Amino acid sequence: MNETDFESYRAFRRDLHRHPEPAWCEYYTTDRIVAALRDREPDDLYVGREALASDARTGVPDADTLDMWADRAREAGADPDVLELTADGHTGCIAVFERGDGPTVGLRVDIDALPVTEADGPDHEPAAGGYRSEHEGYMHACGHDAHATIGLGVIDAVLAGGFAGTLVVVFQPSEERIGGGRPIAESGHLDDVDYLLAVHVGLDHPSGEVVSGIDGFLAVQHFRADFEGRPAHAGANPEQGRNAVQAMATAVENLYAIPRHADGKTRVNAGVVGGGTATNVIPEEAFIEGEVRGGTTDLADYMFHKAERVLRAAAETHGCSVAIESTGGAPSATSDAALAAVVGEAASGVDGVETVRDRDDLGGSEDATYLMERVQDRGGLACYVCVGTDHPGGHHTSTFDVDDEDVRIAIDVLADAIDRIGEAPPSNR
Amino acid sequence: MNETDFESYRAFRRDLHRHPEPAWCEYYTTDRIVAALRDREPDDLYVGREALASDARTGVPDADTLDMWADRAREAGADPDVLELTADGHTGCIAVFERGDGPTVGLRVDIDALPVTEADGPDHEPAAGGYRSEHEGYMHACGHDAHATIGLGVIDAVLAGGFAGTLVVVFQPSEERIGGGRPIAESGHLDDVDYLLAVHVGLDHPSGEVVSGIDGFLAVQHFRADFEGRPAHAGANPEQGRNAVQAMATAVENLYAIPRHADGKTRVNAGVVGGGTATNVIPEEAFIEGEVRGGTTDLADYMFHKAERVLRAAAETHGCSVAIESTGGAPSATSDAALAAVVGEAASGVDGVETVRDRDDLGGSEDATYLMERVQDRGGLACYVCVGTDHPGGHHTSTFDVDDEDVRIAIDVLADAIDRIGEAPPSNR
Amino acid sequence: MNETDFESYRAFRRDLHRHPEPAWCEYYTTDRIVAALRDREPDDLYVGREALASDARTGVPDADTLDMWADRAREAGADPDVLELTADGHTGCIAVFERGDGPTVGLRVDIDALPVTEADGPDHEPAAGGYRSEHEGYMHACGHDAHATIGLGVIDAVLAGGFAGTLVVVFQPSEERIGGGRPIAESGHLDDVDYLLAVHVGLDHPSGEVVSGIDGFLAVQHFRADFEGRPAHAGANPEQGRNAVQAMATAVENLYAIPRHADGKTRVNAGVVGGGTATNVIPEEAFIEGEVRGGTTDLADYMFHKAERVLRAAAETHGCSVAIESTGGAPSATSDAALAAVVGEAASGVDGVETVRDRDDLGGSEDATYLMERVQDRGGLACYVCVGTDHPGGHHTSTFDVDDEDVRIAIDVLADAIDRIGEAPPSNR
Amino acid sequence: MNETDFESYRAFRRDLHRHPEPAWCEYYTTDRIVAALRDREPDDLYVGREALASDARTGVPDADTLDMWADRAREAGADPDVLELTADGHTGCIAVFERGDGPTVGLRVDIDALPVTEADGPDHEPAAGGYRSEHEGYMHACGHDAHATIGLGVIDAVLAGGFAGTLVVVFQPSEERIGGGRPIAESGHLDDVDYLLAVHVGLDHPSGEVVSGIDGFLAVQHFRADFEGRPAHAGANPEQGRNAVQAMATAVENLYAIPRHADGKTRVNAGVVGGGTATNVIPEEAFIEGEVRGGTTDLADYMFHKAERVLRAAAETHGCSVAIESTGGAPSATSDAALAAVVGEAASGVDGVETVRDRDDLGGSEDATYLMERVQDRGGLACYVCVGTDHPGGHHTSTFDVDDEDVRIAIDVLADAIDRIGEAPPSNR
Repeated sequence: MNETDFESYRAFRRDLHRHPEPAWCEYYTTDRIVAALRDREPDDLYVGREALASDARTGVPDADTLDMWADRAREAGADPDVLELTADGHTGCIAVFERGDGPTVGLRVDIDALPVTEADGPDHEPAAGGYRSEHEGYMHACGHDAHATIGLGVIDAVLAGGFAGTLVVVFQPSEERIGGGRPIAESGHLDDVDYLLAVHVGLDHPSGEVVSGIDGFLAVQHFRADFEGRPAHAGANPEQGRNAVQAMATAVENLYAIPRHADGKTRVNAGVVGGGTATNVIPEEAFIEGEVRGGTTDLADYMFHKAERVLRAAAETHGCSVAIESTGGAPSATSDAALAAVVGEAASGVDGVETVRDRDDLGGSEDATYLMERVQDRGGLACYVCVGTDHPGGHHTSTFDVDDEDVRIAIDVLADAIDRIGEAPPSNR
Repeated sequence: MNETDFESYRAFRRDLHRHPEPAWCEYYTTDRIVAALRDREPDDLYVGREALASDARTGVPDADTLDMWADRAREAGADPDVLELTADGHTGCIAVFERGDGPTVGLRVDIDALPVTEADGPDHEPAAGGYRSEHEGYMHACGHDAHATIGLGVIDAVLAGGFAGTLVVVFQPSEERIGGGRPIAESGHLDDVDYLLAVHVGLDHPSGEVVSGIDGFLAVQHFRADFEGRPAHAGANPEQGRNAVQAMATAVENLYAIPRHADGKTRVNAGVVGGGTATNVIPEEAFIEGEVRGGTTDLADYMFHKAERVLRAAAETHGCSVAIESTGGAPSATSDAALAAVVGEAASGVDGVETVRDRDDLGGSEDATYLMERVQDRGGLACYVCVGTDHPGGHHTSTFDVDDEDVRIAIDVLADAIDRIGEAPPSNR
Repeated sequence: MNETDFESYRAFRRDLHRHPEPAWCEYYTTDRIVAALRDREPDDLYVGREALASDARTGVPDADTLDMWADRAREAGADPDVLELTADGHTGCIAVFERGDGPTVGLRVDIDALPVTEADGPDHEPAAGGYRSEHEGYMHACGHDAHATIGLGVIDAVLAGGFAGTLVVVFQPSEERIGGGRPIAESGHLDDVDYLLAVHVGLDHPSGEVVSGIDGFLAVQHFRADFEGRPAHAGANPEQGRNAVQAMATAVENLYAIPRHADGKTRVNAGVVGGGTATNVIPEEAFIEGEVRGGTTDLADYMFHKAERVLRAAAETHGCSVAIESTGGAPSATSDAALAAVVGEAASGVDGVETVRDRDDLGGSEDATYLMERVQDRGGLACYVCVGTDHPGGHHTSTFDVDDEDVRIAIDVLADAIDRIGEAPPSNR
Repeated sequence: MNETDFESYRAFRRDLHRHPEPAWCEYYTTDRIVAALRDREPDDLYVGREALASDARTGVPDADTLDMWADRAREAGADPDVLELTADGHTGCIAVFERGDGPTVGLRVDIDALPVTEADGPDHEPAAGGYRSEHEGYMHACGHDAHATIGLGVIDAVLAGGFAGTLVVVFQPSEERIGGGRPIAESGHLDDVDYLLAVHVGLDHPSGEVVSGIDGFLAVQHFRADFEGRPAHAGANPEQGRNAVQAMATAVENLYAIPRHADGKTRVNAGVVGGGTATNVIPEEAFIEGEVRGGTTDLADYMFHKAERVLRAAAETHGCSVAIESTGGAPSATSDAALAAVVGEAASGVDGVETVRDRDDLGGSEDATYLMERVQDRGGLACYVCVGTDHPGGHHTSTFDVDDEDVRIAIDVLADAIDRIGEAPPSNR
């Protein structure tokens, strides 16, 4: 990679870093990516609602929130036509480059930011370098600004090389709310992909280390349960109430007590709860926003089935009703070893890579698994790649940061892997 | 009362005291009472199943237990014919004495003992006096031996006086398990009673004090809930279990948390619980034996309705089933003031009575209320009388004791009250 | 009362009704009352911090909230000098009128409004009459606008009559948050009061009915419990967390399960709860805002003691800490019969009064009890009077309303009662 | 193995099978084994208390139970001298055979039976063959009769062959209650063992299959928690009680809700619970007999630490005290691959063995791990061997059975493995 390209990628990432946008609100981000893609003249470009199965979206914010972010994007110079295509929480895009006969290779990067307030001390590089978040309270604290940049860089490198085949690059919205993977998968745009690569920086791996095949994705299911009871004066007539907070508390107690499962990891969390209106009123309403996870999709299903039963019975215990909504989720997935091997070979030859590990566990969840599953179900191979970076703060903290040199490594590893796939398509057999 | 009668009542009570029998097992006790009644030549005598609506009985022990107590009674000399009439847990009896035109007056006494081990120190009068319980682990610790004796004494005194009317004396079994009141009431033998008196000694009132009208009976409902789940190896496959102990615990937590009620006293207790078979097996079974109470019958119903919902939902929370059985109960009741006034007048003239109070709260439950309710529903009056006694230990404790002089007072008060009723039948109007 | 006075009171109440202010934010209200009092030339006038033991206040809102309401009051024309005296949540005032030798009689009225959105349909008199709340989301939904008006009216009537003695009228802030009674009591301004009257309109009594002595005040204690645990990633390392939401839920379950008490009413409510930050984070923080009550002050103390133990042990169960803060409360109290009798006599002679009841239960809590207790502890008598009104909606609902004619009745009843006290001071002996 | 030996082992096993004895009550069983060992003239024979660190025993039954089983053994012909050595729950024995220079090889077998009622239908071989349990309600339902027989057979085979070294055979009591492993380990008798083999039949592996190295032992810790509160009349004075059943239920709810752990399997079970005395008494006492487990010893410790905190805080929640007793446990362990390899080689050459698997997970717990840990901590190797058998019913069920032919296979495999160890001692390096 020449110095000019390096500088251009750095500038692009810093622009995104200054404008972090949360899930389904990536209006400015999508606009900047679309502009960059149009410069590269893709054969097909699907923007916003063209790239998504709209009904499969989950966790979309309310209209006021969407409007606020759209206004901010407009003020920051976003193209009205792109804003039209992405309106109402239809962010992200997919670019297709056809380069002759050969396999179809997909690359998935994600683009959303987090509700984290960015550090502003002199030790924090974005603050020192003048590209700290301009949206106070929001931050690219998980490196998705780097991922979007890597997407562009890989396109440039592949187009500049001898790759014969089709390259499909997905700029996925709403990974942090586990909301964008499924509508991308169900859009059908990946149905012809033979090899899918996904990439993440960091994950507690240092600069110079590449993990060619990440596994151990916990399947996850988010939910929201709204309990509804009946209010009553807590002093005068407690017996007339139906106590939604008691229902919620009974549910919390029993959610965490769902039996452990012999087949592998299971998780449950009542992450955000609330209820009631006043100390002297028997609470009429309460809610739980929670999640279940499993080492396999079946284990997450087991937990969700049990959780539903607990939620309904807890409501019944206190004469309340409960509405349970699935608010996003993702299956488990496994990186195909044959494809990971190609990535590993590529990584070994890239300047700056010191260690190549063939697998490691993610330990958490990721909705790239929807895309991996889609491709694998149709006979393709998929692999989730980690490119290390010495992030000073942990993921999702105010001092997280990515080294631009590691962005360069990621581009090189992935582009070289795609070249190798084109030359000798791997197979599981 | 002459000295001979006093001695005979004392001997009778001591015999019963030596042979305490728990609820529905009062075989020897009933036999002794029947023999004493036959000496008094009643116009009608209903023994055992003749005195009871058999199907209305609750809390009857299992056949082995009943057989054991019947055997003990037989060995102690009980009449085989009486044992035949009382077989299978049909204890107690009702005697009717017709003495010319006039009101029908009922008197109810109860006869069962408790599973309490009697004290045997020199300070405990029955131990010192040589009439301590011969059935180790059981004891007349609530004075029902005195009550049965009072029943006989009142008959003697009324028959010896000028009472014109009909006297019906009920020797009720199974008060301690709240099991005998309803089958007596539903037998119909009290349907013509115009005035019903019930009596209890002690109740924390001292010797020389009489309360002419006890109120504040808590309505009560006993229940048993059997939870059934599915066992599983707790180490190898916990997820295959359906945990009946978790269901029981969830129920216990929420039973005690049933909302308080503005209209008066409510109570709930999970008095006896158990479950599980081994530390390494997910428990398949568990149970709760409990009760609810209320200051009124409606309040007890409120509690029972809520308790049922809690029990069912707790089972459902853990995928278990639950069978809920009502195992006895009693309504609330109120002593009629007009009848209590007659008792108060009688008491004022009895030798040894120093204080007459017109009302006090029981604070607990009693199934005499079934009989009181039956009589009151048919237009009669009812009144529950307390005759104090300086019991050294509290009710239901190993040192409880009754002074024979207070038995004499009770006989005199009640017999005089019955005479007064015969002479000038009171009315609520 | 002549027509001019009636109109002036109506206008005064409507002005307050248009400007409802919540507890400790009654800046405009206090300003209007102070202005009206100054017109009446009191011998002493204690405003804001002069009327309160500042440290005894509870439930004072944060500075931003206080500032917002102070700004609104300023914009509505409040006197800067009064705003200075009431700054930082020191609202309310006390006026003293000395009229010769005779008893010191106190009258307590409260002045705060509620966070209720007022109805705006044509059936709602304030909306139809053009004096609906101008502070959207807040409303005089408990008649305290009428109470403040009654305070002024009674002053006028008493001053116009022959009362000999001292009249002390308390315009108490923050009754709805049970926050103003204690700082008024501890200010000492009532320490010489011989007779204290408090008044409330409505309470489900119809127009034309007066209850001369309200009893059955539940003692109440508000609290806030803040649980602090340790966050952890719910998927990757749940064992590293200390789950504050689990602690809160365990507390809620067990708070409602505190044993019922034989001595009278007990209540507990976890009225507002919350916790957690994100579905995928083990919750670090949670809180409960709750209350306990008792039919006596001792019973409320019993409940609070048990609640504290539950809160601490629930935190410990999950390795969390908890900070428990008492956020206001009030004792129980009893109206003195001798004083209530005077009120009853006065009421009987007032035009428009059809029924006078000598007592009824409040069923809820009121911090007038602090003032009553203060006066009674120092040998005075106290009495809480209810003047009925046909309120179309219940207290604390959006359609609550007070008939001005009932305000007139209240003024007449209280002024006549004060005259009678002056003429023939009642005594409990 | 010749037919005579085969018959003699069969007869020995059937004798034990007819006399199943539960943990710490294996008086007759130990007597029979000691007699058989004496026939084989061991160099050392440690019987009963000579073989055990007495204080390290856990789960020893009460004296009445021990006496009953000792009486039964005496009646069945046990040697009084042996009964003296094993008195008071000191069962089991260790035999040492010195056969020249060479490694010390240990073999551990267990000998206790289970509280299971044996099937008596014609399909159940022991019933059909006339050697069904003579102790109704107890049964060798886990094959420990076969294990004891294997111990003798291996001694015979090793002594008959050319083994040079020392053979130590442990006949361990109380495996089913996880009580005998630790006192054997702490006796020191295994401190010079270089290679330890343990053996189990069945474990769902069919006849003809041998697993040379069992792993996946869950570390386990049994406990008993006794809650003590204060009784009170549930109707009259519930507030005077301290409810031990509520404490127990709160503990159960929260035990199952201990956070899952990222490092591996964790388990908890409240296997047996109970409490309370009567429906109308606030329960004074309650208990939990439970267990925790972990995929590693650290994970079991994590669970036990959390469980203790839950138990203590649950007691505190309800004003109760709790006494927590550890009632046995076992660490996790791993079979050494080098030693398992020798077993695998031996098994491959044994007649009747069709499949040799090198490892499988136990999935449960076993206190052989105490012995394995002791040997491994001192530099030795250990290996847990499974010899399959087509058991018609599962382990711990009434129709469990072992094929004598598989006993023969086990003897041959182990004896040959010991010969191989003597010839070429394996090493982990």
